[in-house]
Amino acid sequence: MQPSAKASVPVIRRLPKYYRYLRSLKEVGIASISSRELAAQMGTTASQVRQDFNCIGNVNGRQGIGYSVDNLLAILERLLFGDGERLPAILIGCGRLGTAVSSFITNNSNGYTLIAAFDANSALVGRPISGIPIRHIDDLEAFCAQHHPQVAVLCLPRSGAQQISGRLVDLGIRGFWNFSHYDLSVPYPNAVVENVHLGDSLMSLGYRLRNGD
Amino acid sequence: MQPSAKASVPVIRRLPKYYRYLRSLKEVGIASISSRELAAQMGTTASQVRQDFNCIGNVNGRQGIGYSVDNLLAILERLLFGDGERLPAILIGCGRLGTAVSSFITNNSNGYTLIAAFDANSALVGRPISGIPIRHIDDLEAFCAQHHPQVAVLCLPRSGAQQISGRLVDLGIRGFWNFSHYDLSVPYPNAVVENVHLGDSLMSLGYRLRNGD
Repeated sequence: MQPSAKASVPVIRRLPKYYRYLRSLKEVGIASISSRELAAQMGTTASQVRQDFNCIGNVNGRQGIGYSVDNLLAILERLLFGDGERLPAILIGCGRLGTAVSSFITNNSNGYTLIAAFDANSALVGRPISGIPIRHIDDLEAFCAQHHPQVAVLCLPRSGAQQISGRLVDLGIRGFWNFSHYDLSVPYPNAVVENVHLGDSLMSLGYRLRNGD
Repeated sequence: MQPSAKASVPVIRRLPKYYRYLRSLKEVGIASISSRELAAQMGTTASQVRQDFNCIGNVNGRQGIGYSVDNLLAILERLLFGDGERLPAILIGCGRLGTAVSSFITNNSNGYTLIAAFDANSALVGRPISGIPIRHIDDLEAFCAQHHPQVAVLCLPRSGAQQISGRLVDLGIRGFWNFSHYDLSVPYPNAVVENVHLGDSLMSLGYRLRNGD
């Protein structure tokens, strides 16, 4: 049985969490775990764990023993990281947020490699960010034509993101890690977009605190 | 009719996005909008918009005219920001990520005020972060006893977050904006937790790119 590529986005969003938990279980020498135990540790239900695992492939829990941690990790690693080849990514916007999130791209465990960083501010050009020199945004086309990045990390305001998204799509960028408030999946429905809306997240927290979650 | 405090977390997560869109409509002088038009701009469905608005209170769209932008904004502002009083927040962990996200707390539009920032690294104590001096984490108890923060922003590794969460709950912190991989809602089910797992978000993007989203 092949792993399904049809897992829904909510299931996909939970896979990294399973991966992290199973890694920590393996580190302490645990070889198998039941859906009930895993659910309790992760704050979810055994039923959800079983449903999620049904979506991702040949995951057979054994009665009284549970799921093999090694088997689950192997399946999740193949789904999350493919054959291990890193996705080449570029950072657009090298302010405080760009500087902070670039370390998640260069972190060995997330499956990416940061191949360039761009900013519109000439004063930043040449300065290092996560070990590479910042380039001017005017060099974007020449760089992409030569190096073919697949992912762009957008750490710039909404207006800047709106201006540059079309250029990036035309240059072959397939995936966006989007910290701006520009909803680029509306004009570019084929782009794969993962939005991180930090302000929205704070407002949601405020709602829950103010309205008795 | 009172606005319901029973909106589900997925609905709550969408409210800031409605708020942002409606603000931008108001800025360009649009007084009313249909669920269909709003849905098209936000990349969702008219049915979802209507369902979400039914959850939040007395939102009556008028046939042929649509929803009043002013009325929706007033309802959303009351839900998201209450009476306008800012939630007092403290930052735990003043590295690159903490520095970057502190600006979302001090941003006037999110409903919070940053009243202190703490780090375990003595070398950082006294340095400014978003306009306030960094304090040593050993001063946490004395500060909280005097100033009663309600929200903690956790920008530290999993192990550090695990160590400090119980202290923060005991000190009266009700809400957590959690950037660590520590799932504190499992041991502290009464805490209101908004997780931002940046590494997980990147891994989900990688899955979708590698498995043909």
